[in-house]
Amino acid sequence: MPKQDLEDTIAAIATPTGEGGIAVIRVSGPRAFEAAQPFFISHEKLTLSQRPANTISWGKFSDPAGALVDQVLVSIFRAPQSYTGQDVLEISCHGGLAVTKKILGLLLGAGVRHAEPGEFTRRAFLAGKLDLTQAEAVLDLIHAKSDRSLDIAIRQLSGSLSRALKEMKGELMRLLAHMEASLDFPEEDIEGNVKMAMQEQFTHLREKSHFLIAGFKRNQLVREGVLVTLVGKPNVGKSSIFNALLERDRALVSELPHTTRDHLEEALEIRGFYVRLRDTAGLISAPEHSLDKMGMDRTLLAIEESHIVLYVLDGSTPIGESDRHVFKNIPKNKLVIVLVNKSDLPSQIRTEELKAFIGETAYLHLSTRTREGFKDLEERFASFLERETSEAGEQITKLRHKKALETAGEALRRAENSFGKKMSLEFVTPDLRAALEAMKELTGEVYSEDLLDVIFSEFCIGK
Amino acid sequence: MPKQDLEDTIAAIATPTGEGGIAVIRVSGPRAFEAAQPFFISHEKLTLSQRPANTISWGKFSDPAGALVDQVLVSIFRAPQSYTGQDVLEISCHGGLAVTKKILGLLLGAGVRHAEPGEFTRRAFLAGKLDLTQAEAVLDLIHAKSDRSLDIAIRQLSGSLSRALKEMKGELMRLLAHMEASLDFPEEDIEGNVKMAMQEQFTHLREKSHFLIAGFKRNQLVREGVLVTLVGKPNVGKSSIFNALLERDRALVSELPHTTRDHLEEALEIRGFYVRLRDTAGLISAPEHSLDKMGMDRTLLAIEESHIVLYVLDGSTPIGESDRHVFKNIPKNKLVIVLVNKSDLPSQIRTEELKAFIGETAYLHLSTRTREGFKDLEERFASFLERETSEAGEQITKLRHKKALETAGEALRRAENSFGKKMSLEFVTPDLRAALEAMKELTGEVYSEDLLDVIFSEFCIGK
Repeated sequence: MPKQDLEDTIAAIATPTGEGGIAVIRVSGPRAFEAAQPFFISHEKLTLSQRPANTISWGKFSDPAGALVDQVLVSIFRAPQSYTGQDVLEISCHGGLAVTKKILGLLLGAGVRHAEPGEFTRRAFLAGKLDLTQAEAVLDLIHAKSDRSLDIAIRQLSGSLSRALKEMKGELMRLLAHMEASLDFPEEDIEGNVKMAMQEQFTHLREKSHFLIAGFKRNQLVREGVLVTLVGKPNVGKSSIFNALLERDRALVSELPHTTRDHLEEALEIRGFYVRLRDTAGLISAPEHSLDKMGMDRTLLAIEESHIVLYVLDGSTPIGESDRHVFKNIPKNKLVIVLVNKSDLPSQIRTEELKAFIGETAYLHLSTRTREGFKDLEERFASFLERETSEAGEQITKLRHKKALETAGEALRRAENSFGKKMSLEFVTPDLRAALEAMKELTGEVYSEDLLDVIFSEFCIGK
Repeated sequence: MPKQDLEDTIAAIATPTGEGGIAVIRVSGPRAFEAAQPFFISHEKLTLSQRPANTISWGKFSDPAGALVDQVLVSIFRAPQSYTGQDVLEISCHGGLAVTKKILGLLLGAGVRHAEPGEFTRRAFLAGKLDLTQAEAVLDLIHAKSDRSLDIAIRQLSGSLSRALKEMKGELMRLLAHMEASLDFPEEDIEGNVKMAMQEQFTHLREKSHFLIAGFKRNQLVREGVLVTLVGKPNVGKSSIFNALLERDRALVSELPHTTRDHLEEALEIRGFYVRLRDTAGLISAPEHSLDKMGMDRTLLAIEESHIVLYVLDGSTPIGESDRHVFKNIPKNKLVIVLVNKSDLPSQIRTEELKAFIGETAYLHLSTRTREGFKDLEERFASFLERETSEAGEQITKLRHKKALETAGEALRRAENSFGKKMSLEFVTPDLRAALEAMKELTGEVYSEDLLDVIFSEFCIGK
């Protein structure tokens, strides 16, 4: 990562790459107005640096030879009331590749440096506009693939996690101050009720850190998507169900990227949740052949990775041996929903037989022709996901958060342990200070350039 | 195309689809401020509709339940000083898919209609903000793939073509007025010098329309790209030259789409020109085999479609029979440059032999290893392209323009013809009026909804 001098004026195309109605080129730094001025011709008398903050000027952007490049709108933001805390210009031009490159190129030729990925947000962080967890939330917000993950990102960006961490940090500092005030006294002289208050603070802190760490798994589910796998014999209708589910939500999924591994996988949004739907390719058959054995193993692996398994039966044909084999191998900790498909055809599976086969597992009758059961299925998804992600309060979203909280939690545990053993308080406070340090690293009150490099390198250029 | 009522308030995502730092949602129409107001919470006292034009407000965009969706900047433009001539809001939010969809969705739920492709620019046209050729230039500007096509588009957008057409129209109207003033007199009573002045006007108009039409071909070259084809025997180094040319301009091409047909084709920009570079896959060999004959035919077809042919020889091996066969079949109207490749190896082709083979055709020694000759080659491209596109003055860019000008030109020719035959002026003026009508259709003074539908349906949504 090259040196990122705050005195540099930086610029980048801030809108997604491609053709569109509008593109925005963002410029930030002490020379933002001065650098753009020679290219900007407008009817207004004031120069860019003379214009009032938070105003928009229409004008022509021209090259040094006077040739018009585009008609643009220039938005003016002044330090410290801007995204980066510096003077900022946003040049809104027509959204084409050639025009945006040309405007950016002219600025870069005028002593402006091309911004590194995330450099605008990094400057915002360094200016104290947001803490590190909020900066990370900017990235999550841009990458959000469902309403639910958007919701978590925006709450984190608006500082709800910051506040929860600040509270915990405040409590840690109070405990530390409490102890340091008592340090001058020998342990046995500290009064019982003071000790009890300290113990309460320990308990409180322990609960708080556990609660925050527990949120991590749930948030991951929201952010990275819930993996739902369709399993069943060939020709039971897995692909039709796969397509029917995608079709229902076509409007929501079309622009999401899709990933494929051994199996067909598509992304969709169901009731605000980001769902990765996976079709296994009819791999299940009599397990006596080695080839089928391999297919079976792959299916079982796919099940293992999933959060939800949709086990598809063809209601118009009897339950087979391979069904029994696979079904009993599904781990007990998975949510399984049995889909009795082709419900528009005469049923060949009696309810008693089905119940004997699936036990207490939930089941639905489904038909891709009449659409019976699909609404129910979505509701099952939604209620599972809401249950798994429902816990109130602010939740951490990053492995970095989890590790920092675990470090803080361990230091707290050591301190509580020493305290419980009635050791001298001077043996307790260093661990409390270590816990506090970990919390400060989490919010970015203490940071290293290396950490910033790692965090902001994940950003797109222009953010 | 559904009904496009100007009273509707419309909205769309105006930035390219994808993830980026910023996305912009544009809202236009009488209810623009009112529709967005319930979702927008800001520290400022004034409502959106009370705020001054051309100002930016920071605030929170929330759903009706009060849940925060994003922190946004809202730019306010007021009728008639806006892109569409109506009240316009531009909501600048974080550039993610979920967040932009959510904000747009909330507006659409509040009685705002999703904009049709090009509907913002259509409104700008209907409000008289730009004429039809300028509206078309907006599209060209967005799709511009090189500095040169950008240049033509922006000049057209800023009205240079409009002015040229207006001049021609003005001249037509003066001639028509001139004639109509003389209509009351019998033909023989019109004085000779008046007739001579009219004849001069005819000549002038004819030249003007020819000049404008001639610009069409040249502009097409700039807009759609110059097709350059690499031809030569297998193993002479065509692909290395192809890659070396692409590599030189990697920064400029990476985001352009590439098309492939029978041959490998890539887009790049050379000295501001949009160049489509095509590699034919070593198809040339002894033409006695039928398979090779087919390959030869495909190569000749590729040559036929090209503007420039790069004929590659391997300087380290002698000129072969198939070289002679293909080379003599290259049509004489193509620009051919012979590239004697592998100039870093000992030459097996004497200069006299080469000259005997290629005659007056230009040639260059080239080496992908030492990079010898590449700068020269680019200069040859550039001087060819500058020559082919150099003619000064404003140029038409669309088949629609060409057709309208041809219609006007033919009507003018008929009028001039009648005038030359000394027919009564009342037989001349109807054709002049027809020519004027064609000119008015060209600029959009006269238009049909169908024509607007065709033109604006090519636009992206949000423009």
